[in-house]
Amino acid sequence: MGTEAKRWGFQGKQELNAASATTVRGYLNLLMANVSHHNSSPVIPLGHGDPSHFPSFRTTPAAEDAIVDALRSAKHNCYAPTVGILPARRAIADYLNRDLTYKLSPDDVYLTVGCTQAIEIVTAVLARSGANILLPRPSYPYYDTCAAYNRLEIRHYDLLPEKGWEVDLDAVETLADENTVAIVIVNPGNPCGNVFSYDQLNKVAETARKLGILVVADEAYDNLAFGSTRYVPMRVFGSTVPVLTLGSVSKRWIVPGWRLGWLVTSDPDGILQKSGVIDSIIGFLNISSDPATFIQAAIPQILENTEEEFFSKIICTLRECADICYDKVEEIPCLTCPKKPEGSMFVMVKLNVPMLEDINDDMDFCLKLAKEESVIILPGRAVGMKNWLRITFAIESCLLQEGLARVKSFCQRHAKKQ
Amino acid sequence: MGTEAKRWGFQGKQELNAASATTVRGYLNLLMANVSHHNSSPVIPLGHGDPSHFPSFRTTPAAEDAIVDALRSAKHNCYAPTVGILPARRAIADYLNRDLTYKLSPDDVYLTVGCTQAIEIVTAVLARSGANILLPRPSYPYYDTCAAYNRLEIRHYDLLPEKGWEVDLDAVETLADENTVAIVIVNPGNPCGNVFSYDQLNKVAETARKLGILVVADEAYDNLAFGSTRYVPMRVFGSTVPVLTLGSVSKRWIVPGWRLGWLVTSDPDGILQKSGVIDSIIGFLNISSDPATFIQAAIPQILENTEEEFFSKIICTLRECADICYDKVEEIPCLTCPKKPEGSMFVMVKLNVPMLEDINDDMDFCLKLAKEESVIILPGRAVGMKNWLRITFAIESCLLQEGLARVKSFCQRHAKKQ
Repeated sequence: MGTEAKRWGFQGKQELNAASATTVRGYLNLLMANVSHHNSSPVIPLGHGDPSHFPSFRTTPAAEDAIVDALRSAKHNCYAPTVGILPARRAIADYLNRDLTYKLSPDDVYLTVGCTQAIEIVTAVLARSGANILLPRPSYPYYDTCAAYNRLEIRHYDLLPEKGWEVDLDAVETLADENTVAIVIVNPGNPCGNVFSYDQLNKVAETARKLGILVVADEAYDNLAFGSTRYVPMRVFGSTVPVLTLGSVSKRWIVPGWRLGWLVTSDPDGILQKSGVIDSIIGFLNISSDPATFIQAAIPQILENTEEEFFSKIICTLRECADICYDKVEEIPCLTCPKKPEGSMFVMVKLNVPMLEDINDDMDFCLKLAKEESVIILPGRAVGMKNWLRITFAIESCLLQEGLARVKSFCQRHAKKQ
Repeated sequence: MGTEAKRWGFQGKQELNAASATTVRGYLNLLMANVSHHNSSPVIPLGHGDPSHFPSFRTTPAAEDAIVDALRSAKHNCYAPTVGILPARRAIADYLNRDLTYKLSPDDVYLTVGCTQAIEIVTAVLARSGANILLPRPSYPYYDTCAAYNRLEIRHYDLLPEKGWEVDLDAVETLADENTVAIVIVNPGNPCGNVFSYDQLNKVAETARKLGILVVADEAYDNLAFGSTRYVPMRVFGSTVPVLTLGSVSKRWIVPGWRLGWLVTSDPDGILQKSGVIDSIIGFLNISSDPATFIQAAIPQILENTEEEFFSKIICTLRECADICYDKVEEIPCLTCPKKPEGSMFVMVKLNVPMLEDINDDMDFCLKLAKEESVIILPGRAVGMKNWLRITFAIESCLLQEGLARVKSFCQRHAKKQ
């Protein structure tokens, strides 16, 4: 019985391969594979939002101590309830209540394996047959990936660069119909680096209420705002429209590898309960994986013991980096930044392709940049905008300067002769 | 605009609620809710496999030290590659290679959020339209839950109590057809406490090869064997049939809350690669959540530094508990244990309902037992066998004795008068 001749009844699943082909990590892997081994200068990663490796972004010892204490107690080696352990849910409710007039209870908080799992839950729960969801363009593409995998139809509304990346609310009203279930907004913005004003968020809430859809507020970068616009969480409009808030310790504490996030229902009028959304969230959690119990158990201590000084130092560092990034990009003729970043770790920059000699588009730009300069930048197509670039400024400032200097020399070398 | 009158376009998803209703945790929550608050004696949990709370089952300090070292290094606060970090994959390959003639490479190992996520992956990847999977009865019901959620048809083959829970291989051949993709075996057995012999596993492999299906070997309880049958991992038959091994640190190290598992492909002939299964596993991992990076990073040190003495102490404790459990159950007339447990943390016990006065079935037995005696036992229906019980013996031995004494007095009180 030869192996070659044997017929086997199993096979892979094309949907999974297709869904995973368009992730940010997929693009970054492709670019990394293109870095020349002959180039002796180090790779400068301006492609993704994980500065945890850099000294300026090291997390606070208070957070590490909390993990060690929880582990050493030996009380948290056990399974956790599928919704998360109560002390952590209570601590997160208290943390989020600081901004609210109504009060969240621990029952409104569900612990997730990073924000990632919260996105999986939202798309799985809302994906009934025929339903559609409104996603921003440019976007954080994991929403597109999960919606597509769950067969939830995607409709993109635009963020308007000429208006500082405001939501195109007229388009939202036109796109929505009776099968629309939700609108996703990411604030502070990934990939645009914008921060929505109170007024803008209020309009989003009113529009969603009018359309009868819920608001999914991705606040993974919550409180990472360093410009003139004050960060306001979407849940302050919970009485206007039900809000699902997605958050985590990943970004504010610079520990994305800890995989501790939350999904929070802001719904003082009990609409999500009546509609069955709450039961389905619990149902999903009952049949999926949990964050590590001792990391959950560390949450109260992390939230309580982190000093304001740590947060302000990170904000200060991000502001400096954003300034450097904006100024250096301004010096490069073929790049335009429509709005100086005020939050998150990213900025969107327009690529003027006709000014370049032998660059076809954003992908070509990023591939050649990786090869010639060992600089990784995400092509705009990865976030839904061809011939734009998403640049991460959250890295050590000397590296950021070096990286953007290399981008400048790359652009000069490839500029069309006048 | 009153809230009551407002129509909203979103709703919950019945499939999720249905899928989660039949989990072990669902049954246990129901039973716990039935414990009488008037009963002053402590609850004795014989319903689930998590002895991490008990002093006799405390994990080794070597494992805790490994986690602390990884965390304190500050090198592992970052995102990990979706397949897991290389040093951990290499260490697990080496760990599993001890039993093999061919060699696994790190590329054969994928890190998962506990064994739970590995089960999600297997069912999602194999669920093409019309496909079916062979699951044991009695089973670990999370397979049934995930298969149903992924619309993978379930066909149950029996484990035969009169033959020490051997696989009914004749039934397997009858059940399988051209749309069958895999057979799942759990070894050491949850819920039966059996350990499959080399000969039995060899026959499973030969049968699967003949049918052209792969073997999913759930070895969550790997090496937890304390009877006369030697534990043999299914992957030793990888040259006969492709094997997907599911494992974790949860049970052998008694740390289920750490959520670190693995999915390993044993496929020296490259059949899984050719069939696209490998690409789909990677595809799934690209679009789902990861175990915490610093826990991944601790794996090499955990595997290297755990002393044999810790393992043998746990085995010794489990053997004592299994002996107590078997002997005490033998003393209860309405319960029959067809096979003394040799592995895992569970045993299946047949309930002779006609010998009881006012007990209708296994569920009724467990509900009344919870209420009257504050003892939690899983009804057999939760694992696919009505009027059986699954008893966990992996708890502190004094509690086990106390719990089974309460079961005995409960049975005496409810016995039919002769």
